[in-house]
Parts: sequence; C-alpha cells; structure tokens
Amino acid sequence: MLDVAVGSVENRQIGLVRKDCQEQGIVRIGAVADSYHAVKSHQSSSGVWCYDNFTEVGSNSTGLVKSDTHDREKNCIVWPINHYLGLNRHPKVIEASIEALKQFGTGCGTSAMSGGHSSLHKLAEKRLAAWLGKEAAILFPTGYSANVGAISALAKGPSCFILFDRECHASIIDGVKLSGAKFLPFKHNDPIDLARKLNKFASQYENVLVVVESVYSMTGEEACLREITELKERYDFLLFVDEAHSFGLHTERTLCTKFGLTDKVDFVMTTLSKSTASIGGVIATTNAFKTLLQVEANAYLFQAAIPPSDVAAIMAAMDVIEDTPELLSSLWSKVSYMRTKLTELGFDIGSGTSPIIPVFIRDSDTLLRMGQDMYDDGVFTTSVAYPVVKHSEVRFRFILNESHSYEQIDRTLAVLERLGKKYGVVAS
Amino acid sequence: MLDVAVGSVENRQIGLVRKDCQEQGIVRIGAVADSYHAVKSHQSSSGVWCYDNFTEVGSNSTGLVKSDTHDREKNCIVWPINHYLGLNRHPKVIEASIEALKQFGTGCGTSAMSGGHSSLHKLAEKRLAAWLGKEAAILFPTGYSANVGAISALAKGPSCFILFDRECHASIIDGVKLSGAKFLPFKHNDPIDLARKLNKFASQYENVLVVVESVYSMTGEEACLREITELKERYDFLLFVDEAHSFGLHTERTLCTKFGLTDKVDFVMTTLSKSTASIGGVIATTNAFKTLLQVEANAYLFQAAIPPSDVAAIMAAMDVIEDTPELLSSLWSKVSYMRTKLTELGFDIGSGTSPIIPVFIRDSDTLLRMGQDMYDDGVFTTSVAYPVVKHSEVRFRFILNESHSYEQIDRTLAVLERLGKKYGVVAS
Repeated sequence: MLDVAVGSVENRQIGLVRKDCQEQGIVRIGAVADSYHAVKSHQSSSGVWCYDNFTEVGSNSTGLVKSDTHDREKNCIVWPINHYLGLNRHPKVIEASIEALKQFGTGCGTSAMSGGHSSLHKLAEKRLAAWLGKEAAILFPTGYSANVGAISALAKGPSCFILFDRECHASIIDGVKLSGAKFLPFKHNDPIDLARKLNKFASQYENVLVVVESVYSMTGEEACLREITELKERYDFLLFVDEAHSFGLHTERTLCTKFGLTDKVDFVMTTLSKSTASIGGVIATTNAFKTLLQVEANAYLFQAAIPPSDVAAIMAAMDVIEDTPELLSSLWSKVSYMRTKLTELGFDIGSGTSPIIPVFIRDSDTLLRMGQDMYDDGVFTTSVAYPVVKHSEVRFRFILNESHSYEQIDRTLAVLERLGKKYGVVAS
Repeated sequence: MLDVAVGSVENRQIGLVRKDCQEQGIVRIGAVADSYHAVKSHQSSSGVWCYDNFTEVGSNSTGLVKSDTHDREKNCIVWPINHYLGLNRHPKVIEASIEALKQFGTGCGTSAMSGGHSSLHKLAEKRLAAWLGKEAAILFPTGYSANVGAISALAKGPSCFILFDRECHASIIDGVKLSGAKFLPFKHNDPIDLARKLNKFASQYENVLVVVESVYSMTGEEACLREITELKERYDFLLFVDEAHSFGLHTERTLCTKFGLTDKVDFVMTTLSKSTASIGGVIATTNAFKTLLQVEANAYLFQAAIPPSDVAAIMAAMDVIEDTPELLSSLWSKVSYMRTKLTELGFDIGSGTSPIIPVFIRDSDTLLRMGQDMYDDGVFTTSVAYPVVKHSEVRFRFILNESHSYEQIDRTLAVLERLGKKYGVVAS
C-alpha cells in the first residue's frame, strides 16, 4: 500500500495525502501515516518541507532558522511569530518571569480546581477581567484549550445551537464539535447571512451561541462587530468574541471596547501567547458564567494550570503595554508602511488592516517553490497551504511585530519584489 | 427561575446543579449559570466551597492556602499536587528555566508547525522519545491537548472505533468524542470485557484504537498492561497508553518499559506537568505516526507551542531524575509508609500502589464537612465529589510527593485519624 502513495509524492502537497489515500482505497491508519511520511521525507530531501523549521534560540524578529529534517540553516528575518509587540524579549517581561520562578517554582502540578492556582494566577484573572471589560475572567493554560473548554461547556448537547463564522480558528471549531450541539457555519464576516440563519433556526433551540473573531488570523480582516451585536436586538443569542489577534493592540485593549460593544458581548476571549508574549487563554464574562465554566469546562477542571512564570510574563507584558503607549503607535505605523509598500509593489494582500498581512499567491506549486527561495534569501514565514485554505487562496502570511525594524521590513520587501517578479506573482 | 435553584442550595453539591436544573425545567444557559453561582455563593459564605482555594506562593508540600471566595486562610500541608518528585522547587530545575528565559525569551508566539519551536524543543522531543522507548516524540503545550489532539487525529470519523477504559481521564474522553469515531468504554481495568468487545466489534471497523492509562488518576491503580497487550495476538488494534501518573517514577521511566511491553504499545503518552514539574504533553510513536500527528492534530497545528522555559524545566527535571536515583526509592518508601499507616488506621484506600492515595468516604455530605474540618486543621487536599465519581465512591485524594517529609505525613495521619473517628469513617 505504501508504494501507491510513494509513487505520487513528487510535487504533492502534504495536505492532499488524506484525499490521495481515500481515492486509492488506503484506509488503514498505519498506511495513511506511511503515506504522509513518504511525502514528508521526499519534500525534506528536496528541501521544500518547511514544517519542521525551528529557531536556534527562540522566537525573535530575526535569527538562525534550522530544520529537523535537512541540514540547511539560514539567518533569516522571521515573520510567522504572533508576538505583535515583540515583548517576549523585553527585559521587564523576562525579569518578572525569573522572579516568579524563584518565588513560585516551575509548574503547578494540578488543575486550578484542585488548588493549582497561586496568588499570581488570581491577580492575573482580576486584571484580565478589567482589561477585557467584564466582571470576571477564567484563566486556561492555552488559548486552544480555552476555546475548546468554554464553547463545549456553554452549548452542551443537541438542544443548543451554535452559529460560527466559517473562518473561525480550529480551536473554536473543535469546541463546537465537542459540545454535541447542533451547529452551522455562516458566510465569512457576513452579518446578513448570520441574520438569515438566526431567523431560520434560532427559535428552534433553547440556547443559541454565536461565535466570531474580532480579527481573522488568515487574512487579518476585522469582523463586522457592530452589525453582529445589533442582531441581538432582533434575535435571542449569546455572543462569544475571540480577540486573539486584537487584544492589547489598541489603547482600549480590545476591539469590542474600542467600538463600545463590550456590554453586548457575553464572552470576550483571548489567547495570551500573542501581544502578551506568553501562553494561556482567558474568557471574560459574568461571575455566574465563570462559575459554570469552572464546573463544566473540562479543559479547566482536568488540565494542569499554567505555570506561574508564564503568568508573570503576561502581567509584565500588560505593565509594559500600559507604560509604553508609543509601542502601539509604532506597531501601527509599521503595519501601515508595510501594507502600503506591498500594495504599491502589486501584491494582493486582501482588505485587512491588522499586523497579519497575507500575500496571496493562489497557486500551490508556486507557494512551495517561492517559499523555498525566500528561505534561501533569508526570509522565513508561514506558507498557508491547502487544505487549511482553498488552492485558489494559498498565501504567505507575514506577521508584523513592533520589534521588526524598518530595515528588516525593507529587506523583506526587496526579496518579495524579486521573487514576485520571478514567479509572475507581480508584473515585471 | 433563579429562585427555584436558590431554594435548594443548602447542602447541595455543585455537581448536582445541572441535574436540579433539568428536573426543574431550567434550560436557559444563563439561568443554569445563575443556579451554579447561587450554590457557589452559598457554599462560599458557609466556608465549604473549596474549588477556588489557591496557594499564596505556588505549589509545594506545605504553604499558605487561601480562597478567592472567602477571607479564611490557613497554613496547610498540601496534598493535591501531582509533582510526585517535588521537582518544581529543585534549584537545578529553576536555574535551567531562568537560563532559558535569558536565552530564548518568554513565549513562542506561534505553533510548532509555523516555526514556534526552538532548538530546545527539538532536543526535548528527541530525549523524550528515548525515555518513552520510541523512535519519535511530538511535543504539545499541555497533556490535555496532547490527548485531545492525538486521539481525535488517530481515529478520525465513523469508520474508526475506539475502546477506552471507563475510568480514563477527561482529556482522553474529549479526544474520543472529538474524533467522530464510534466508541465504547470497557469495564474498568477488565481485559476480559475488553476482549469481549474487541471480539464483537473490531472486525466491523477499518481501524480500532484501544486507549488505557498505565495508572488511573482517581484510584492510583495500575492497568493490567500485560493482559491488554496480549490481546494484540488475537485482535487487530492500535494501543495507546497514557503514562501521566507513572512517567519518571521508575528507573525504567515508564510502566510499559518496566514490564517489557513498549514494543507492543503503539503510542506512549505522558503529561509533563507531574514528575517533570512543568507543563506539556508528549506522544511517543513511530516517525510515520509523528508525521501524521503533525499534519492532522489540530492541537499541534493550531496551538501556540510550549514556552522555552517550560521545556527547560522538563529537561532539567529529567537530568535530576537521572542523576538522583535515590529520589525514586525515597518516594516509594514514603508511599509504602503512608499506605500502610492509613490501612492500619482502618481507612479504605482501595487496591492501588501508586503515590495517588484515595481515602474513600463514600458519603457526599461527610466529604464536604470533613474536608472543611481538615482545612481548619491545616491539611489541604482534593475532594473528589459527585459527578466526577458516583456518590458511593466519593473520596479524598492524597498525592504523595517525595518532598513531603515523614513529619508532614505523620501530622496528616493524625488529623485523618481524629476526623475519621469523628465522622464515623473509621471505628473509634
């Protein structure tokens, strides 16, 4: 069975392996794994496998990028990191983590419900609640597990109905699936389609949960939050907004608050691995819903709590954001600069305004080859390939951090211009 | 609707609230949350709410235990922590984490697949693979998400079938549910029931996955691993063993290896928040299955990687375990001492042999009141209440860490003896 798949490894996207296997009647999971591995091995030897790339000394705007699967290594400008403010290298953030290690030790060794939290965790929950504009907040060890835990607990079973934006993050979709609720995606960022579906289905269910993101991770596009909250006047639903890609990037802390909508949002969620340069996830809501989540969200009940030093990093990052408002204006200036330049060069970067800048390639083969060339030219970023997005929507994603210098941006633009012309992505 | 539930808060277990609400026709999730919160508020004011207890300065064998919901605080011997070797306070572990912070910064800011891993993560994966006796290992940021991610990817869709031990951890059950596979629990630690179910169902499915734990967290009981692996001679299935509560506690590192069974186990999983005193989860398997998990496990693909300092803590804990074999013998001596003493005092502690020592109370009301008294007497541990277990199986759980001194064990035994007699749990 292995041979069949090996025969098709050349120029094969890893994301097509499942489909290939299905078409060829390969159903045994061991054989599917062998097929995946054959494609990975082939791509590794030809140098295009990028999914085991890692940094020599951790996330930063620049550094040595290596791979587990081949011997190449390259000093690169690094673009796939969601540390929008670059705070993982800030001396105050590192110092606070070190202090927490000395005082609180390394891990927690049990869940929050069993006494795994410390005074530091409780302080962080109170402060996060305030930043997110809600009465209470509940802290999970990761953003992924916060979404999985909260959504599966809030819309439990088939008497509940979940409507979610079609481009919501995998952690939201996994929470939706795990809930056992009935669910339906609505058209991406389309309040009219959402209204149509609320109108058709909402009255049939005891509880309806609508889940959106404030900024979508694949495009950097902002949600139509105002239009969506206005639907609460006509339909009866709870609204859950994932602020992963906006939290901490505005003086108002969240987009919901920036637009004056926090009171109309029932659950404001964010990860803490992005602007706050650590790990963790948080749901801000009422005291009552916090209690429900404590008791019903498995990811809170049955998952070891986030280590104290990671909590200290979050809190110190919040201090830095409070004390250094110019960080935010500097970030947004750089975003505007890079978006403008890319557009001037003729690249299609979609309609977003956030530090997530997609560069659409729209051809899987070009994506693969151009990605390899970029790496060789010292620019490392993520290829968003099929099946994460459709073939016609494959793209590179450049995530701007305030720690990227204008010189690094310009060098990257020069590489993109040269390769864009070489591959016919932009006109020569 | 709120009034109905408030009327029944006295002596109500928080775990009964959902059922109460269902019986009283309370279906709106906001009203269910209000009911939960009414019970929590009542229990908080009367001092029996223990699920917001936290430590003043992090996990340790002893320390100040406080609560978010009332003003009491007490210096306690602390028993709910799964740091079996107490390594979260080991100077070498803390020092290694500090060094990693200085070199690698705080978070990773993206998933492993997008370049979130560093050379430290890759070293950890290689070393964990060796400890777990497999070709390759894949590192997740938490144990919960490792189980959810791996199981849901390995047995995808209704052509797969999962059989799991009825007492498997919630992270396994959530992975099973998320997979979309057909599934069935088998009787706890009963290879005959497992064989019966394999015989009846296995041939109907393309892939069968059997999931067990090496040691069960609620009882401390070891799985019948030999009998279960022997079933592979008669039935065609993949075997997944969660070593969360045994990893690092034996000179052979895992129970699978101790019993010479690692070759018959397809996936050896462990959390890294227990013996290695950090956070994280790992699946050890073949290179091919690792590739499949990289590409298909959402919790790997779409979750920010574990921070470098947490990885450094894991590696340093492994160093300490390697360099200090007397830690293990000391732990097991203390376990044997405490188990023997509790049995001599007349407590029912089940049939386990691990550092997880359940003390069965078997009455929910006694559990609640005795737990409060224990706290007042300076002993803090977890009450395992309904619905996590049946009413007839409610228990306290004492988790022995090597860092607990014999003096702390003796003081705890004295408190248990006094309260056991007071509440008629043991004969006066």
